[in-house]
Amino acid sequence: MNTDRLEAFSDGVLAVAITLLVLGLHVPAPARGSLATQLGREWPSFAAYLVSFFVIGIIWVNHHAVLHNIARVDRMAMFVNLLLLMCVTAIPFSTATLASYLRHGGRDDHLAAAIYGVPVLGVTLSFTALCTWSAHRGLLQAGLGRREAATSVRRFAAGSVAVSGAIAVAFVSAIAALATHATIAAYYCVERSPADRDP
Amino acid sequence: MNTDRLEAFSDGVLAVAITLLVLGLHVPAPARGSLATQLGREWPSFAAYLVSFFVIGIIWVNHHAVLHNIARVDRMAMFVNLLLLMCVTAIPFSTATLASYLRHGGRDDHLAAAIYGVPVLGVTLSFTALCTWSAHRGLLQAGLGRREAATSVRRFAAGSVAVSGAIAVAFVSAIAALATHATIAAYYCVERSPADRDP
Amino acid sequence: MNTDRLEAFSDGVLAVAITLLVLGLHVPAPARGSLATQLGREWPSFAAYLVSFFVIGIIWVNHHAVLHNIARVDRMAMFVNLLLLMCVTAIPFSTATLASYLRHGGRDDHLAAAIYGVPVLGVTLSFTALCTWSAHRGLLQAGLGRREAATSVRRFAAGSVAVSGAIAVAFVSAIAALATHATIAAYYCVERSPADRDP
Amino acid sequence: MNTDRLEAFSDGVLAVAITLLVLGLHVPAPARGSLATQLGREWPSFAAYLVSFFVIGIIWVNHHAVLHNIARVDRMAMFVNLLLLMCVTAIPFSTATLASYLRHGGRDDHLAAAIYGVPVLGVTLSFTALCTWSAHRGLLQAGLGRREAATSVRRFAAGSVAVSGAIAVAFVSAIAALATHATIAAYYCVERSPADRDP
Repeated sequence: MNTDRLEAFSDGVLAVAITLLVLGLHVPAPARGSLATQLGREWPSFAAYLVSFFVIGIIWVNHHAVLHNIARVDRMAMFVNLLLLMCVTAIPFSTATLASYLRHGGRDDHLAAAIYGVPVLGVTLSFTALCTWSAHRGLLQAGLGRREAATSVRRFAAGSVAVSGAIAVAFVSAIAALATHATIAAYYCVERSPADRDP
Repeated sequence: MNTDRLEAFSDGVLAVAITLLVLGLHVPAPARGSLATQLGREWPSFAAYLVSFFVIGIIWVNHHAVLHNIARVDRMAMFVNLLLLMCVTAIPFSTATLASYLRHGGRDDHLAAAIYGVPVLGVTLSFTALCTWSAHRGLLQAGLGRREAATSVRRFAAGSVAVSGAIAVAFVSAIAALATHATIAAYYCVERSPADRDP
Repeated sequence: MNTDRLEAFSDGVLAVAITLLVLGLHVPAPARGSLATQLGREWPSFAAYLVSFFVIGIIWVNHHAVLHNIARVDRMAMFVNLLLLMCVTAIPFSTATLASYLRHGGRDDHLAAAIYGVPVLGVTLSFTALCTWSAHRGLLQAGLGRREAATSVRRFAAGSVAVSGAIAVAFVSAIAALATHATIAAYYCVERSPADRDP
Repeated sequence: MNTDRLEAFSDGVLAVAITLLVLGLHVPAPARGSLATQLGREWPSFAAYLVSFFVIGIIWVNHHAVLHNIARVDRMAMFVNLLLLMCVTAIPFSTATLASYLRHGGRDDHLAAAIYGVPVLGVTLSFTALCTWSAHRGLLQAGLGRREAATSVRRFAAGSVAVSGAIAVAFVSAIAALATHATIAAYYCVERSPADRDP
């Protein structure tokens, strides 16, 4: 199979997942106090929404770049891609969970922040697996050498280590973990892999 | 009509349906016990989510392969495709129902697991009907012989029998039925039909 | 503007709207009685879901056929198309309202069934307006004569009359109104307009 | 990167966001009074839904026109586009918030109406930034002169000023603010920028 419909379907899932994040924001109700107070209490929802939006956005950009380098996909690549998408669709859930515990505080916000990192880690691991498998099976574009492929794999493996770090940070401070995720997203936003061939 | 817009619309529905599954996961609330306990109690939701994600994923892969072999569609094929999509959009509902009864247990979880199989059965029957009709009406690609078409039909008919088996299993054990659905999905994940012409 | 991106956006909205219908189905909760009883009580939801799914499906098929005949769109055509899509996105709301009142019964189910017809009427009127405007402004495909264009307009005008009839029927019986909508959808499913140029 | 997949992803997010607006409409429940009374009380939801639908629709039309003039996008343009989409996905939330406070009245509806304008302002500012950056970095189509580019930037800057005006109006009257947003949307619906090259 060529990658066109895989991209179209993945784009669809990513677009829906990124938009469903908004369902995690609670619409303030007039009866529960002043609007300003309610929105102030909701800051963790807004912060988590913001970070998750850019996390999924960066995943989309990377998904793009990776599939740009792949000439065709086999069943295994399609399965790994499904795994990746499953992790992405779990992000609105983990985001809402983290927001719910950040508002409440207590010891469980550490666990919620750690869980927040799990689907993100699943995505970076899926990217690593997809790049490794595609290189191993000769599914890459003709012009791509062994070195570029290895660089791609290393890049996502490094991402997995960084996200694991964010999960570890969660057990110290939930807010620091969210900030770490934001930093990782910002890094991938400005960083350009050598295999990322924009003119 | 050629199949391009049919594929685009079907991809859209499949992408939204697979992502809506996440709305069936309950966001833990701090007031209702420790996060770990709540997530532990929610395992049926996660298991059902996982299985349904791959069931819809496999449906997408097969939808792809089937439409790849069809040159053009008439009104009847379009209607059968709508029927197929309707069954797919019912999966988030049947998944949430099964998860709700697996958590609770009792005799009704058998019925819930049987109901879970109904839209999946509807999908395999729709695929069988779509292949039969397309072969009968000469809507297939020029290169496809009578034998490949018959193989496709047999393949989905076999799938219908397997899913019917999973529905029967539900009356013995709801969890065994879910496991049967997972096994069927895994089988279709690795299996390659002869008509599935990847290079 | 050519019609490609208009079709892609409209396909997206139609695919999301048709899939959101499922959110109107209530997931049975173990505490509220046996599953069979609950699903039995929910029959109006399933009936309304079924009819609305095919109503939106038929709208998609017709949207396709209409845009197939239009070579390019101007601002006005784009605005009319937005109006059409707005009516479509209101259907999950009117469907859920009708289902809620069919379950309850009483005099208000007549009003709910009448309201159910309003967005559908909006769609047929938008189609009529889109065809009339496109013919008037010379936006149609080169091969299309004045007569085919007039037939298209008449066809959707007839649809508007039929849907108005279904709205009138609602004041006699809500269930009969839903059945009328189903009949109209079935009619458009088998009927082929002369301008509908399948090979 | 060329703009094709950016458009496809953006179309997806815009289509989902515009359809999610419907989730802000409350399905009337038979127990809470007559249907007509309930729908009457819900008028702010319908008004806000109507305005937001056309606001997102106009954003889609403009997004189209802007990307039509851009030949390729770099990381920064992609990031600004993500920012734009994030503001769009926030609109269903701000719409539901405004509707909730319009129903209730009191002083907080002013703040809710002001907040309603914030994501819309974010969109016009993102458009201004996207046009400025694309012109500055030479990402525009070959045929586009410096003057057309400057006109585009001025157009969105003017839009930002108009939306800021609507936010200011909110502190006088929430309903007047909503009407201002509707007027701005209507203006952009009929207005044609010089760079908007319909045949």
